[in-house]
Amino acid sequence: MSRTTIHDIAKELNTTAATVSRALNNHPSISSATKEVVRKAAQKLNYRQNRAASSLRSGKTYVIGVIIPSAEISFFGSVIHGIEKVAKSQGYSVLLFQTNESYEDEAQGIQTLLQSNVDGIIASIAKETTRYDHFQEVKNRKIPLILFDRAIDELDVPAVVIDDYKGAYMATEHLIRQGYQRIAHISGPQHIQIFHERLRGYVDALKAYNYKVDGDLITYGKVSIDSGRTCTEALLNLPKRPDAIFAVEDFTALGALQAIKETPWNKPGQIGLVGFANEAFSAYITPGLTTVDQQTALMGQEAANIFMNLRQEEPTLVDLPQKIILDPVLVVRQSSLRKKISRRREE
Amino acid sequence: MSRTTIHDIAKELNTTAATVSRALNNHPSISSATKEVVRKAAQKLNYRQNRAASSLRSGKTYVIGVIIPSAEISFFGSVIHGIEKVAKSQGYSVLLFQTNESYEDEAQGIQTLLQSNVDGIIASIAKETTRYDHFQEVKNRKIPLILFDRAIDELDVPAVVIDDYKGAYMATEHLIRQGYQRIAHISGPQHIQIFHERLRGYVDALKAYNYKVDGDLITYGKVSIDSGRTCTEALLNLPKRPDAIFAVEDFTALGALQAIKETPWNKPGQIGLVGFANEAFSAYITPGLTTVDQQTALMGQEAANIFMNLRQEEPTLVDLPQKIILDPVLVVRQSSLRKKISRRREE
Repeated sequence: MSRTTIHDIAKELNTTAATVSRALNNHPSISSATKEVVRKAAQKLNYRQNRAASSLRSGKTYVIGVIIPSAEISFFGSVIHGIEKVAKSQGYSVLLFQTNESYEDEAQGIQTLLQSNVDGIIASIAKETTRYDHFQEVKNRKIPLILFDRAIDELDVPAVVIDDYKGAYMATEHLIRQGYQRIAHISGPQHIQIFHERLRGYVDALKAYNYKVDGDLITYGKVSIDSGRTCTEALLNLPKRPDAIFAVEDFTALGALQAIKETPWNKPGQIGLVGFANEAFSAYITPGLTTVDQQTALMGQEAANIFMNLRQEEPTLVDLPQKIILDPVLVVRQSSLRKKISRRREE
Repeated sequence: MSRTTIHDIAKELNTTAATVSRALNNHPSISSATKEVVRKAAQKLNYRQNRAASSLRSGKTYVIGVIIPSAEISFFGSVIHGIEKVAKSQGYSVLLFQTNESYEDEAQGIQTLLQSNVDGIIASIAKETTRYDHFQEVKNRKIPLILFDRAIDELDVPAVVIDDYKGAYMATEHLIRQGYQRIAHISGPQHIQIFHERLRGYVDALKAYNYKVDGDLITYGKVSIDSGRTCTEALLNLPKRPDAIFAVEDFTALGALQAIKETPWNKPGQIGLVGFANEAFSAYITPGLTTVDQQTALMGQEAANIFMNLRQEEPTLVDLPQKIILDPVLVVRQSSLRKKISRRREE
């Protein structure tokens, strides 16, 4: 059986191949209603767009490249779903590149995506990355670049982030309202803006409630399960140990939880714990982890929407970067709830 | 500052640009020692390979495309690490495409990777996929295609899988040896070979130990948390309910665990549970999930190794597909351990 062409679709709909082509390529001159009819006919006739030919004509590949630090962090998987949802609706495909948090890999990823002639790049920056020449190259080539979550203001490109400061403030405030007295924070590398912002939110929440900000209770980890565990062990060995911990993200919190559970003198519910990111596992562990949800699907959709707008405009619009700041959502589970009974006993 | 070229590296090493080029492109005529020296110098001088120019000369892009059903299943993330390890060592980049278990997306992914001129494709097949014309197209174009985990024999291409039959047999045998009497199985869609093989392993283990194979105790789920929960609720409502469940994979097992925990008459440890895949969360949940590890990193490495061999050979070698079958490893945690005390009470 020969492959369905746009001519077959045009015949079916009694219209011209040019109209079908424009509709399938989402051309602004075609109405939404017509696009819908053409897409349905294309689907019915099992038509697969010959992107190679189409891209020869338009100079577009209809591919968006997405750079993520790790495919094993469900946060990124969830943002990708948001990106894909918008991309698919506009006839774009999404190719992913995983940096494993390495600068070298990230630079390689940018090269690989540029070489694949992607129409735009949506990226979240690796932990290790402290210089941005590779991203500058994307800008120089006038290819739309949008950052999400781990963004860098100095790059001066559009970004979708959540309000990390506010999320951390909410998390710390929640622990204060539960009645915890000594609330520690395990932070992350400070050159990454989001971790710095979360530290600020923690400090400001303490101040707002007239809590002393105790430098002993602030540690800097490496954003991993192992690091969360090590930092927590150190915190729990302090002469004046904390009764609650706000961890910079959920993997750190998971390590903290393991260390807390193994502490001989600890009773369940004695040490409060809050994470950040609402990783998939945080609902499944015992106790369930209180954490800050980052509206991941929305983040991905907004990032893809920015790309869809940029591609229609003159590249110079990149000079006016847009920043979308989403609101964090506190998800309260068991890990942060102070047990009233054990509290009375202590008093 | 101008960009480092292969001429700068050649000058630094007092050799020719041709040698440097061949070394960086992993040419067989260059010794490993020389390649190492050149790579170190390239790194020192912060050289970034101009893949576009290099690929114009060689016709290669040095990109491997990897098709995965979901970036949110840690199993695939872990296989990708194995692929990347080998790819990186040979100067290749890896681009990922996520199918979300959809046939349409998978076909689109193949088109996108072909359009990006990848040198080869490594894929695991989506749940929904029941026809393989898109993979056939890759074969027709003589581009190396390697399948992993969810492979299809009829495609007649190289594959790396684990022995699913053996893994399921081991899981079931473990439950039998723990002393469970009525062992149920929640299976998955039978058109996917691995799920069918796991069912076979379960049935044969029961037979080998002279257990009755009870059709009531075999259900077919949709390979998800929700489906695991629903299937388990149905099983636990049977007049003669099971005392252990072997779930076809860990997300199904997670749903089963939730249903088991919510059952009013259940005491912890009364119902044994084993999953399959050793997903990241399986170690963190309570009780820890007994499961079957699939040697994911090794699986990825072997798949990438097959690609590295194929690219050196005549494409006709694809006619002699290689199949690597890895051994599964049973990981015993709390969820399957039968509590002797409660057993005595029952008797």
